Amino acid sequence: MMDHLQLLSRLSRPAESKIVLLVLDGVGDIKTLEQPSTALETASLPNLDALAKTSALGRIVPVAQGITPGSGPGHLALFGYDPMKTENDIGRGVLEALGLELELGPDEVAARGNFATADSAGNLTDRRAGRISNEENRRLCALLREALAGQTDPEVRVESGEGYRFVLLLDGDGLSAALHNTDPQAIGVPPRAPSARLPEAEATRAKLVPILERMEQAIANEPRANRVLLRGFSKLPALPSMEQLYKLRCGAFAGYPLYRGVAKACGMEVVPCSKSLAEMVDVVRDHWDRFDYFFLHIKGTDAAGEDGDLGAKVAVLEEVDEALPALLALEPDVLAVTGDHSTPVPMKLHSWHPVPLMIRSDHCFVDGRSQFTEGATRRGHLGTFASRELMGLLLANAGRLAKYGA
Amino acid sequence: MMDHLQLLSRLSRPAESKIVLLVLDGVGDIKTLEQPSTALETASLPNLDALAKTSALGRIVPVAQGITPGSGPGHLALFGYDPMKTENDIGRGVLEALGLELELGPDEVAARGNFATADSAGNLTDRRAGRISNEENRRLCALLREALAGQTDPEVRVESGEGYRFVLLLDGDGLSAALHNTDPQAIGVPPRAPSARLPEAEATRAKLVPILERMEQAIANEPRANRVLLRGFSKLPALPSMEQLYKLRCGAFAGYPLYRGVAKACGMEVVPCSKSLAEMVDVVRDHWDRFDYFFLHIKGTDAAGEDGDLGAKVAVLEEVDEALPALLALEPDVLAVTGDHSTPVPMKLHSWHPVPLMIRSDHCFVDGRSQFTEGATRRGHLGTFASRELMGLLLANAGRLAKYGA
Repeated sequence: MMDHLQLLSRLSRPAESKIVLLVLDGVGDIKTLEQPSTALETASLPNLDALAKTSALGRIVPVAQGITPGSGPGHLALFGYDPMKTENDIGRGVLEALGLELELGPDEVAARGNFATADSAGNLTDRRAGRISNEENRRLCALLREALAGQTDPEVRVESGEGYRFVLLLDGDGLSAALHNTDPQAIGVPPRAPSARLPEAEATRAKLVPILERMEQAIANEPRANRVLLRGFSKLPALPSMEQLYKLRCGAFAGYPLYRGVAKACGMEVVPCSKSLAEMVDVVRDHWDRFDYFFLHIKGTDAAGEDGDLGAKVAVLEEVDEALPALLALEPDVLAVTGDHSTPVPMKLHSWHPVPLMIRSDHCFVDGRSQFTEGATRRGHLGTFASRELMGLLLANAGRLAKYGA
Repeated sequence: MMDHLQLLSRLSRPAESKIVLLVLDGVGDIKTLEQPSTALETASLPNLDALAKTSALGRIVPVAQGITPGSGPGHLALFGYDPMKTENDIGRGVLEALGLELELGPDEVAARGNFATADSAGNLTDRRAGRISNEENRRLCALLREALAGQTDPEVRVESGEGYRFVLLLDGDGLSAALHNTDPQAIGVPPRAPSARLPEAEATRAKLVPILERMEQAIANEPRANRVLLRGFSKLPALPSMEQLYKLRCGAFAGYPLYRGVAKACGMEVVPCSKSLAEMVDVVRDHWDRFDYFFLHIKGTDAAGEDGDLGAKVAVLEEVDEALPALLALEPDVLAVTGDHSTPVPMKLHSWHPVPLMIRSDHCFVDGRSQFTEGATRRGHLGTFASRELMGLLLANAGRLAKYGA
């Protein structure tokens, strides 16, 4: 029995065609009694609407009915990887490191760290240390680094994140990430001692204990950030690269480090660029000959959805719409516009709702609808299917999949 | 690789929200040249229509395209269990026992029995013994019990069913249900001797042989019911309970024992109640604080479909519609109305056709359609998906699923 990805990989063949996947993060929305129109319905999108007119429409379900994906599973599925496969899982520690644009080795274990406050009895009183400033964070991380000077086996890196967050990286032979969180996710109790989820992680746990002790000694007398909580121990998943899988040279264009990191984990080459589509397209144009597949990521739709700000979501869509002609002028053989998940304004969160999709190519079924909206895509030729099947559809439209069977 | 249920279980979290699943058994129907309108289209359903107006609509496929489910797989799928997994199978013997409201132990083997007629050569002439009366059945079962008096290892129970049917229960250590039917499903041949489907059932087979001999000796001289046929040897499936899986306290409200039995097999607490929705809602109200998930089962739609009686199906729907406001008055956070399968009036049988579904919650996509019919649900936001994915959607709408992945 082949799985879906094995089939795609077996059938993939090189071709002289270019695929552009434009991901509007969190683009899908819902209608409720209080919000009778979605952002896609509200915005003025003449270029997206014109594109819809010559495209095939449909919807994708990121993971399964009712499952709300984080950015990791949402994007892995768009790139053809099965988000239900535990070996494809991008852990919280790794995501945080990717978000800080850190390079991760294949054996490196990443954990997301919180500075926290405990009372004199050692019980947590604030899991975020009063939401300390970035400056305070940098000073504390310097203390941790100083305390860990000379540490080898594993080598340790400490990198500041936003506010109370940091990333801890452990690099050495035979490290395992199968460790429980030390963050008890509750106050009034002490942090948990490091413990192994699997017997194979016992050696790593034993090495982590003195490292954590040295870190905590270094900040023991701090007024607020006197403890360290760790969670999401993880390694980069060993994903087969998209180039190997699909015989595609893949370029990633994303304004935010997290998405660059996920793309890199899939073997894409990351090209530095800014956050707006207009400027992104300029960079894409400069690299047009270097790639066959272009992943363009727009974050603003998701951010506006999480803020519950319909007007902001509309504004991002209109900005995207304005930049669309420049993208179309590159004449990609296949252009898909969709999202990694929905982020409905009324929910202010990622959600499970199906995500609008349109695909334009010479071989797409032209639905002839005049809008790119939740309603129009629901009625489209492509129907509603799992996000992880999108990759096959893009390859097919690009003439990059051989016939299956004689 | 996680399967769907493992993922749901991993993400499920407690919340202060209530889910009501109203199952109209066999509600889906078909249009044919002879029946141009379905029961849902024909009936006057002002309350269901009003609910549709503020709900998300869709359709569910019980098992797979073309697969007609029995009540077991149909309901297991609604509760999130994969009906294709053989270990989730509720066998015919167990279903028959549950339908008679018998308590089954985890090691007990149940078989569905038929009284049958054989000629003097031992060949079957009637597999149903001339459809004997219930009184006759009870007299015969008393004879069987008498013949089995003192039987231990296994202990044996014989329970009368309808007409020619009975249930045989075997209770003892290490019993296996991997036995072939003794019913040859044909006349003109003798009943089959008990035989094992798997080597592990050999000991059980050996114990069953003398038991069956004693039973048949006891009725050998009966004019019609002179033989016994056994089929559907089965044990209760060892299903993880819905409470464990989903962190939900689940209450089942069903007027018929079979559905109470299936619910119980899933770990729901069965609350005695009557067959009409109006009276059922009174009982639900009394138990509102005790559960998070309420399974309400209405049998009448299926019974009318099996009778091929469109008028009766319409009448049941209208009766449900009348009781709906009382259910809505309980203000469930999530209300889903659907069926376990279709029972089209023109077919007089369960069928494979997709089943109409509507879900109302604060986070559902309001389709704004004015009817709850096969046609309206086909055009709904929820699309058409597998019944076993419904549970995830209900949990998501109830705020009871954590985000998947960081």
